[in-house]
Amino acid sequence: MTAGQPLRTEAAPLPHRVRHHSKSTPPASLDAELVPSYPPPESEADESWVWSQIKAEARRDAEAEPALASFLYATVLSHASLDRSLSFHLANKLCSSTLLSTLLYDLFVASLAAHPSVRAAAVADLLAARSRDPACAGFAHCLLNYKGFLAVQAQRVAHVLWAQSRRPLALALQSRVAEVFAVDIHPAAAIGKGVLLDHATGVVIGETAVVGDNVSILHHVTLGGTGKAVGDRHPKIGDGVLIGAGATILGNVRIGAGAKVGAGSVVLIDVPPRSTAVGNPARLIGGKKGEDVMPGESMDHTSFIQQWSDYTI
Amino acid sequence: MTAGQPLRTEAAPLPHRVRHHSKSTPPASLDAELVPSYPPPESEADESWVWSQIKAEARRDAEAEPALASFLYATVLSHASLDRSLSFHLANKLCSSTLLSTLLYDLFVASLAAHPSVRAAAVADLLAARSRDPACAGFAHCLLNYKGFLAVQAQRVAHVLWAQSRRPLALALQSRVAEVFAVDIHPAAAIGKGVLLDHATGVVIGETAVVGDNVSILHHVTLGGTGKAVGDRHPKIGDGVLIGAGATILGNVRIGAGAKVGAGSVVLIDVPPRSTAVGNPARLIGGKKGEDVMPGESMDHTSFIQQWSDYTI
Amino acid sequence: MTAGQPLRTEAAPLPHRVRHHSKSTPPASLDAELVPSYPPPESEADESWVWSQIKAEARRDAEAEPALASFLYATVLSHASLDRSLSFHLANKLCSSTLLSTLLYDLFVASLAAHPSVRAAAVADLLAARSRDPACAGFAHCLLNYKGFLAVQAQRVAHVLWAQSRRPLALALQSRVAEVFAVDIHPAAAIGKGVLLDHATGVVIGETAVVGDNVSILHHVTLGGTGKAVGDRHPKIGDGVLIGAGATILGNVRIGAGAKVGAGSVVLIDVPPRSTAVGNPARLIGGKKGEDVMPGESMDHTSFIQQWSDYTI
Amino acid sequence: MTAGQPLRTEAAPLPHRVRHHSKSTPPASLDAELVPSYPPPESEADESWVWSQIKAEARRDAEAEPALASFLYATVLSHASLDRSLSFHLANKLCSSTLLSTLLYDLFVASLAAHPSVRAAAVADLLAARSRDPACAGFAHCLLNYKGFLAVQAQRVAHVLWAQSRRPLALALQSRVAEVFAVDIHPAAAIGKGVLLDHATGVVIGETAVVGDNVSILHHVTLGGTGKAVGDRHPKIGDGVLIGAGATILGNVRIGAGAKVGAGSVVLIDVPPRSTAVGNPARLIGGKKGEDVMPGESMDHTSFIQQWSDYTI
Amino acid sequence: MTAGQPLRTEAAPLPHRVRHHSKSTPPASLDAELVPSYPPPESEADESWVWSQIKAEARRDAEAEPALASFLYATVLSHASLDRSLSFHLANKLCSSTLLSTLLYDLFVASLAAHPSVRAAAVADLLAARSRDPACAGFAHCLLNYKGFLAVQAQRVAHVLWAQSRRPLALALQSRVAEVFAVDIHPAAAIGKGVLLDHATGVVIGETAVVGDNVSILHHVTLGGTGKAVGDRHPKIGDGVLIGAGATILGNVRIGAGAKVGAGSVVLIDVPPRSTAVGNPARLIGGKKGEDVMPGESMDHTSFIQQWSDYTI
Amino acid sequence: MTAGQPLRTEAAPLPHRVRHHSKSTPPASLDAELVPSYPPPESEADESWVWSQIKAEARRDAEAEPALASFLYATVLSHASLDRSLSFHLANKLCSSTLLSTLLYDLFVASLAAHPSVRAAAVADLLAARSRDPACAGFAHCLLNYKGFLAVQAQRVAHVLWAQSRRPLALALQSRVAEVFAVDIHPAAAIGKGVLLDHATGVVIGETAVVGDNVSILHHVTLGGTGKAVGDRHPKIGDGVLIGAGATILGNVRIGAGAKVGAGSVVLIDVPPRSTAVGNPARLIGGKKGEDVMPGESMDHTSFIQQWSDYTI
Repeated sequence: MTAGQPLRTEAAPLPHRVRHHSKSTPPASLDAELVPSYPPPESEADESWVWSQIKAEARRDAEAEPALASFLYATVLSHASLDRSLSFHLANKLCSSTLLSTLLYDLFVASLAAHPSVRAAAVADLLAARSRDPACAGFAHCLLNYKGFLAVQAQRVAHVLWAQSRRPLALALQSRVAEVFAVDIHPAAAIGKGVLLDHATGVVIGETAVVGDNVSILHHVTLGGTGKAVGDRHPKIGDGVLIGAGATILGNVRIGAGAKVGAGSVVLIDVPPRSTAVGNPARLIGGKKGEDVMPGESMDHTSFIQQWSDYTI
Repeated sequence: MTAGQPLRTEAAPLPHRVRHHSKSTPPASLDAELVPSYPPPESEADESWVWSQIKAEARRDAEAEPALASFLYATVLSHASLDRSLSFHLANKLCSSTLLSTLLYDLFVASLAAHPSVRAAAVADLLAARSRDPACAGFAHCLLNYKGFLAVQAQRVAHVLWAQSRRPLALALQSRVAEVFAVDIHPAAAIGKGVLLDHATGVVIGETAVVGDNVSILHHVTLGGTGKAVGDRHPKIGDGVLIGAGATILGNVRIGAGAKVGAGSVVLIDVPPRSTAVGNPARLIGGKKGEDVMPGESMDHTSFIQQWSDYTI
Repeated sequence: MTAGQPLRTEAAPLPHRVRHHSKSTPPASLDAELVPSYPPPESEADESWVWSQIKAEARRDAEAEPALASFLYATVLSHASLDRSLSFHLANKLCSSTLLSTLLYDLFVASLAAHPSVRAAAVADLLAARSRDPACAGFAHCLLNYKGFLAVQAQRVAHVLWAQSRRPLALALQSRVAEVFAVDIHPAAAIGKGVLLDHATGVVIGETAVVGDNVSILHHVTLGGTGKAVGDRHPKIGDGVLIGAGATILGNVRIGAGAKVGAGSVVLIDVPPRSTAVGNPARLIGGKKGEDVMPGESMDHTSFIQQWSDYTI
Repeated sequence: MTAGQPLRTEAAPLPHRVRHHSKSTPPASLDAELVPSYPPPESEADESWVWSQIKAEARRDAEAEPALASFLYATVLSHASLDRSLSFHLANKLCSSTLLSTLLYDLFVASLAAHPSVRAAAVADLLAARSRDPACAGFAHCLLNYKGFLAVQAQRVAHVLWAQSRRPLALALQSRVAEVFAVDIHPAAAIGKGVLLDHATGVVIGETAVVGDNVSILHHVTLGGTGKAVGDRHPKIGDGVLIGAGATILGNVRIGAGAKVGAGSVVLIDVPPRSTAVGNPARLIGGKKGEDVMPGESMDHTSFIQQWSDYTI
Repeated sequence: MTAGQPLRTEAAPLPHRVRHHSKSTPPASLDAELVPSYPPPESEADESWVWSQIKAEARRDAEAEPALASFLYATVLSHASLDRSLSFHLANKLCSSTLLSTLLYDLFVASLAAHPSVRAAAVADLLAARSRDPACAGFAHCLLNYKGFLAVQAQRVAHVLWAQSRRPLALALQSRVAEVFAVDIHPAAAIGKGVLLDHATGVVIGETAVVGDNVSILHHVTLGGTGKAVGDRHPKIGDGVLIGAGATILGNVRIGAGAKVGAGSVVLIDVPPRSTAVGNPARLIGGKKGEDVMPGESMDHTSFIQQWSDYTI
Repeated sequence: MTAGQPLRTEAAPLPHRVRHHSKSTPPASLDAELVPSYPPPESEADESWVWSQIKAEARRDAEAEPALASFLYATVLSHASLDRSLSFHLANKLCSSTLLSTLLYDLFVASLAAHPSVRAAAVADLLAARSRDPACAGFAHCLLNYKGFLAVQAQRVAHVLWAQSRRPLALALQSRVAEVFAVDIHPAAAIGKGVLLDHATGVVIGETAVVGDNVSILHHVTLGGTGKAVGDRHPKIGDGVLIGAGATILGNVRIGAGAKVGAGSVVLIDVPPRSTAVGNPARLIGGKKGEDVMPGESMDHTSFIQQWSDYTI
């Protein structure tokens, strides 16, 4: 059994109640090879369900690959819960010779214990990666290997610290994340849940930016301020938005729910809901009528090629 | 008191003589919350003044945040001078299992001691970050957390080594900076003072590039060579230039003093002083008459949006 | 003798038989200062010849720079062969507190021993960097300092593991490379030989991408999937292609042999052999008739400026 | 104020109720310079009182010695309680490349939280070192620097694990303690409270050994088994015993309460309470009549010199 | 099943042919709880048999104790052979910031591969610890946790290097072993097989010392030179000798086969075979007639107590 | 040429002026194989002469043993002076996750620079080891590998700190030395120059102990206090004393110049100059008349065997 195959074991019993995670992945069109056919249960049960999946995947991989077993036991299989595992993993990734892993571990454990919403958002992010990224080989793959996922979880803890006026510590965390993962998200930025930072290298998100739920952001994306402004000066990204690789969105502009921003676009203007912005500088191109999918979830960021080509060339 | 607030303590007495650091930040328009109201003294006294600020900030933060105190004592408060602190911090960031921190520390201490201009440039960079970046919470924040700042300081030491024909060591430093900070500046490149690399991830600056004083460069910016050329083949950036995120400037072109390069632009041509280049490929758009600000200092990199939009759409 | 100068010592005797490595670097046009005048011997002998060069360079540098000697002995001079040196270097770069260097070293040594083609590709990559990158100071410089080179070698080992269905280990390697070098290449991607990733920060290459031989790819380049597709969904890059900094190529498109993609371009379409694509979205501009050079080897990625400017402005 | 001086600050208010810690240190004979004049309160309050002392000492030392401040904040001042500080310190001492500090920290925190008696014994040990060892400069000195103290605390946790049948983990802890502190105490050994291992190098205590309360053991002491026996085969040390440097006690013998064993003695026989054993092989010499001190507390291990000399020469 | 219980699993099938390992442990007198009832097969098969035992033990412990699983996979279960596991473990124990683990690993792997006798001696040592030390919980316990065992294996490799005139490397190994394990054995010393260094702290064995087969040496034992001599100046220890804790044997004296040296003895004279030396200075006491056991194997180091007491007091 | 052979190279020119280092090693009796025939020059020149020897030895060894070259360059050959090399080596040995190597390096460099007598004592210690220990393969061997030598140098720096009332830092150093080298010397103890701690494991020297010049102390030696005393309570060791392995000297007793203490002795009484104490408890045995050697220098610690035996049995 390879890493990418669905996993059904006694250790991870399927919930009886089944819910479709998003309209864009209806069961009928499921590619059994790539998308999990076991939609996760809702809300409270999600965390333990995902955790049981992660452990089952890690156990399977540890058995098949002794060279990785030590890593999998240290990061997953020796832990009692997802938040312990995540805290351990983040602490070992982000520690340095002057910021010890035990200190960070303490910090993450305490923050995750005190803020169930941060834990829930992590679970939603895992589900997002699993259902949206065809290269995602499993929940454990995302938890252990996706630097976008890890950067966002660390930012959420930094966000909590920021809100508690523990700003120097929040900024130190931001700095370590920026160095280790090359992802630079200001602790004050508000990041929704079910967010996917795919590949993630070079993502920069500014202090007053807001990112909605179920947003997908590719690498090299900037949600930047405009140099001359102070105060509220960064983009507001609606739910379900998809932002292509290398897109640069500057200023306190609104990208409406369900909008798409093409790869390499430079966006300095508002983008209405469910519309698409492409080019440098970005211009708007019409969305297909009747489309009700959320591109941040469907990851359909090339359906506009045809239109765009029509429009721009 | 939060990290971003101005700091006035006995430990950091305000200089009596006050000077405006740049025309673009006149006292009248100061936002007391975000921009320091204590313009630094001139030249020689700068270093000790900034150092006293950094220590006061670190002391305040260590007191308020025990979890960070160990870090702040190790990096700042146990050191006798800014160059010791910076050397320690760089050495611990850039060391690896085959390049020990003690070796790097020795190298940085010796280089900074022997080259006051490198120390002065570091101070100017700190002042630049503090006055230009609204997200900068203080000098200590920049010293400790800005990978752009740290990368530039390490490059200046590498530049000294390069000039001394200690090229393999200079290249090894470049390599470590490129890995640790994702900032790749050739040791031979000449970087002015008062330079701000904001966010900094992915910045690439080639061997024969020249960057003037008071330049601001956002992340993902390339000052690249043109593959076919040898010899002098990289851009020359004038004083006070502002280069937006993701801009790519290629070849031995001149970006005149006070010019702006829009985010995401691809620039293959000279850009006259105080003009603006935007787009892919970049075209020039007129600067406002009478403007005498230096965008590299004001960070006003969106004032051209209106013109650009007018021009291009 | 500086790091960039050619090196001729008894330790690295010149092969008698001389072969031109590529049409684009004919002996007549050699700049003796920058391009090695000692074309390497063919196939089997390449590895030992390059290894002898690397050792001679490292010995020269160790002698001239005691501060670097420990590093050079640890990484090069204490090893019996290129694959041992490379395995050691990669293991120490990619190890973490949960993935020990000894484990990775074992893995790399075993993989390189079992797959001569992976070793041969590494040698071809070293030759490519040395002949194409004017900033390359020597083979040792590339081996030790080029994160693009190191990332590709690690990916080749991950590719072998992937093919052996050791996917979790392959993905763990990918993850470490993405963190340490900010280069994210899926283990399943097929990468040719003689490949140069210059600067390399932010390069992303997807699962079903194919990169031919003698391709040169600058930093920030994406060979991405299109979100809506599953299966074969990434670009196919022909031999000798040159892709400029920041270019984004999306979808299962073909970039023909000898084609050029301009910096910052967003390519969603096929690009015919020996043609050039520029702009966002990219359009094709004519190649010069009679040109038979391979731009991936000549690195001539600005010869199209004139045409492009003509064409686009 | 030097490290060894008593410390009275608001941070460490003196308990109103005063109790004499042992008969051997009556207030009248207190040397104010060396023995604390502030006998600790009883039982439950001890831990918080000692912890407040430790924090006050660490704060004083951090202020006086910036070079040590980072260490003191990391190990003491950033922690909320003695058991957190101790867990952190032990984890960072005992961790290795294959036993991560976060794992050990978790283990110590959980064990100390679940077993108040282990915490109480640690407090008693701190008090013992402070009152018995003239070289002890304070509670923080003992907590941070006494490898005997640290070894015993780790053994107590290993003892808990042993009792829970988590034997491989207990043995792994024993092994790390033996390597790091050169103190080898079997997890199954029962160690009382108020125990002082002074200097501690080379102490070996076997599986079925029992050490009573308020025992003082110098370095190089062996409580060994006899090779031919299995089962209960190690010494039983009564309360208040003092064992001099290099003494070797072998077999299931009883050292009665308040007995002394001379330095370098080899003891293969029972030693009655309040008597003294010296020599190789050890013989008994009479205790002074009317003596009621416990030598393990008074550390009076040379008062027998006169008698011994009389007796043996 | 606890750590100390015998282990019989399919993974570790019992050899059909059974051999008695030594006269001192006849099957009839076996205590099934403490001594393995599965005498190992002879010579060539020993290594694989012991290795299969070790793996079975490690697998059992990893399953029972997730907190230790990562350690057990890293050190044992991910390795293909005992010599790989041992090399990995030694390399990670003995490495330092200036002697990298990969270098040491390479060295140990190569030495063990080239010298089957060193591997065979390691196996004999494991069998010795397992059968002689009642506290030994299994082969894996010894391999992973016994610093005496590990020190001897490293010395054997250093001995090989010494014989190859690679003396500086041999001495560097000795130094690391002395620091990490507090066991100082000169690389030139000749150590037999089936040797047990129990507890091991403080053992010192000089350059020209010889230690026979099946010798047991407790901690703090010195086989020292006499300061005035050069050349052959250290003790020669016969087969099956038992040396008690803290014994000091000085000069080129002979301790005959099967002799015992009492704990704490200072021996400056030859000790005939099967006799016992005790005291400071040591005197000889008669061995029991008819005794044919080898005390180094039976570990009977207190049977002389009675005689000694009779004799000396 | 093996490690132990004398070294004569141009890099280490022999001083013209020759001085006899001590009466006990007259040129006539020199064993050319083991004792250096190049007595070092006097006082000021010693340091540079020894340093040139060390570098020559390290260069020879680095050339002969590539596997050690990295270590030798890092510790010796990259440094400009003996005190830099020593500071680097000590810092890397004694650092921990909470006491960084750069901090310790700074401390050692500053202390050695400010206290030439500490440097001079280090040189005298190197000469002592080289001339007294037949197993000493060279100055570099001692500098790099002798934990007794390294422990004493660290103690001398701690002693300086203690004298400067920087006691917590001095005690922290003591603690690290006790852990890393298993040598526990109180910072307040006064240690003379030309001191040899041979093997050194387990040496304990108390707060008010004094050790004269040219003293040799074997491993497991205790210069302990007597528990009941406060104030001046530790032994005073005269010049040229030799203390055998495992000797325990307790209380404020005087060991006269040139005295010998036998291995394993327990000394509670004064020992007159040039006399010998042996046994447990130690008794005095007559020195040979006319003897004028200093045993601490000649290391003749068994010449008393005959007398002792005569006397005691």
